Amino acid sequence: MIYLDNNATTKVDAQVLEAMLPYFKEEYANPSSIYDFAKRSNYAVREARGKMKDFFNAENEKEIIFTSCGSESANTAIRGVLNMNKNKRHIITTKVEHPCVLNLYKALEKEGYKADYIDVNSNGELDLAQLSECINDDTALVSVMYANNETGVIFPIEKISEIIKSKNKNTKFFVDAVQAAGKIPIDVQALGVDLMGISGHKFHAPKGIGALYVNSKTLITPLIIGGHQERGKRAGTENVPYIAGMARASELAADGLEYEATEVKRLRDKLETNILKNIFNSRINTGIINRVPNTTNIGFEYIEGELILLHLSDAGICASSGSACTSGSLEPSHVLRAMNVPFTAIHGSIRFSLSKYTTEKEIDYVCEKLPAIVDKLTNLSPFQDELEALKKRR
Amino acid sequence: MIYLDNNATTKVDAQVLEAMLPYFKEEYANPSSIYDFAKRSNYAVREARGKMKDFFNAENEKEIIFTSCGSESANTAIRGVLNMNKNKRHIITTKVEHPCVLNLYKALEKEGYKADYIDVNSNGELDLAQLSECINDDTALVSVMYANNETGVIFPIEKISEIIKSKNKNTKFFVDAVQAAGKIPIDVQALGVDLMGISGHKFHAPKGIGALYVNSKTLITPLIIGGHQERGKRAGTENVPYIAGMARASELAADGLEYEATEVKRLRDKLETNILKNIFNSRINTGIINRVPNTTNIGFEYIEGELILLHLSDAGICASSGSACTSGSLEPSHVLRAMNVPFTAIHGSIRFSLSKYTTEKEIDYVCEKLPAIVDKLTNLSPFQDELEALKKRR
Repeated sequence: MIYLDNNATTKVDAQVLEAMLPYFKEEYANPSSIYDFAKRSNYAVREARGKMKDFFNAENEKEIIFTSCGSESANTAIRGVLNMNKNKRHIITTKVEHPCVLNLYKALEKEGYKADYIDVNSNGELDLAQLSECINDDTALVSVMYANNETGVIFPIEKISEIIKSKNKNTKFFVDAVQAAGKIPIDVQALGVDLMGISGHKFHAPKGIGALYVNSKTLITPLIIGGHQERGKRAGTENVPYIAGMARASELAADGLEYEATEVKRLRDKLETNILKNIFNSRINTGIINRVPNTTNIGFEYIEGELILLHLSDAGICASSGSACTSGSLEPSHVLRAMNVPFTAIHGSIRFSLSKYTTEKEIDYVCEKLPAIVDKLTNLSPFQDELEALKKRR
Repeated sequence: MIYLDNNATTKVDAQVLEAMLPYFKEEYANPSSIYDFAKRSNYAVREARGKMKDFFNAENEKEIIFTSCGSESANTAIRGVLNMNKNKRHIITTKVEHPCVLNLYKALEKEGYKADYIDVNSNGELDLAQLSECINDDTALVSVMYANNETGVIFPIEKISEIIKSKNKNTKFFVDAVQAAGKIPIDVQALGVDLMGISGHKFHAPKGIGALYVNSKTLITPLIIGGHQERGKRAGTENVPYIAGMARASELAADGLEYEATEVKRLRDKLETNILKNIFNSRINTGIINRVPNTTNIGFEYIEGELILLHLSDAGICASSGSACTSGSLEPSHVLRAMNVPFTAIHGSIRFSLSKYTTEKEIDYVCEKLPAIVDKLTNLSPFQDELEALKKRR
């Protein structure tokens, strides 16, 4: 089995599982309890908070909130900021965000907020001039993802922060960094963000744990109200095993950034170059710079992506069309639509996302299998004239 | 180490860990993905949903939503119902709920809701006449816990449901069953509830997983907005290991109810009887019927509960004063205050909560150690005259 869908989820690192096991076994105390037995689980959470602080390069551990996932982080950040700024009713995001931001924005519009959705160009790059024009005195929040889950395109967060703060220094800036964490460096202070969310299972921690950075100048209400956990910002007994696991994963991820930038990138580039060279009706759906090193999104023109995926699955290869969070819906990707990917390619677009576990042998196998699969489906396509013309052009 | 704080959290059952491990190792696929590899994690979630349906005795698997904890279940239920009934502005709960309900109700009052908090008597029993009087045409929701976390007192949910529905059939009824699950039978249909929340870590699943039952006639909005997971009622990639683990724990819990009702109850009663007999300044803070079988809440008059706990901890015994979710705060328990526990006992009240892992030897050890600890602290109490008078009365 060759797993090239690491933007959907990743394999838990054996060292992460190792770090979690004591808290599934003997160290099961509730970290809020006062007896000696609880000191070790309490310490585990505090130690993990310190590691997450380092991962974000936050100023202070108090700026870290543990959540149950990236979606919870985004919902907490966005609603939390808006609840603290009730007099402001304007919010901004991009057209290519993850559903946890886009669908929340749509809900907020129904609640009376005015929302602007910033465009991207055909390379997936954000229209910064448009963003700048949109910001006004009433803008409570701008929410922009760090790296796109479908295309891997990286947004210039530092520059965006400068634009926002120069237009309205009171506008808060939330960054969904779920697809950046573990792939490229994260530094909330250098980037100038107020809030940033990540999800453990995208960097080899388990599914069901996330973190939210909220800088000390930014006030939020809790999304989950109840006990005093997370300094009153997120109720619920702490998920000690996963918190310890994500902290361990964050250390491994930080240590692995060099490998991502070199070896993972080399394998991704090899796969991409090979496909583009050997499959005449393939096209890369993004620019080739400003991307996370593990992701490529390729359109196969005049054929159906789902069919490619099923044939890949039969060959033991896991890849995806767009986001797992929207799979099952037949609508073409909102990200590729925002990029004006031609309709001839949009339905046949596949995301390959590698990880540190991806091997050269696996990439070679995909390079070997994929052309025959695409060729077979291309021959079955009803668009033979168009394909013939395309072949001549390329 | 003798762990008598199972209402705070429980040890993960080895069989639960066993059930989770494959999903931390080879079966790491995102259950929403379409390739073959994802079929097994997808099946694990579906199978778990069926088991949770059985645990609640729900009519349909579609009525089960996986959440990250009991607090999220309660927040989802309460906000979800209110968002769907925006024209109604009256809500009811009890004075002895968990902070995840009480603090949310306080927040809702600030948002413009009118909230009534129903009283309990000195046995911890709910004032049903008062509840009945409070319900009116504008009542959107009644939220009542099944069993109290601090005292173990069980509320008559079936009777409460009848009262609610006879007064206003459109009023929704949410039951926080976090402290009932695994201790007494749960049957949402027989009880007549619309929504019910539970938390895995109270019945030997890990911390960080919960479930919410929402009957098919009850509409809610999601608390965490995003992807299509949980039929659009809760976004975020499914926490497959914990979902599988909680489902296994629910089977074990259902199988263990007889043991809870007999053996765990016998040990609890032995501890309680022994304490009340051998420690003159002890009193039981509840009635002795209508309680979950594992819990006893005992007041030690004229001494400080935190001091008892620290001495118990030194003797290797874990117990608590009130809820872990409020520990650290110096305020006396809101539950015991609502029950009018005398001020002489309220600060010296200790909750002992047993589990299937509690042994007779452990209970004997506590029965042996506790009197000396209490005696020592009693001798240090500044209330010697009152203690002398109390001794004579008993």
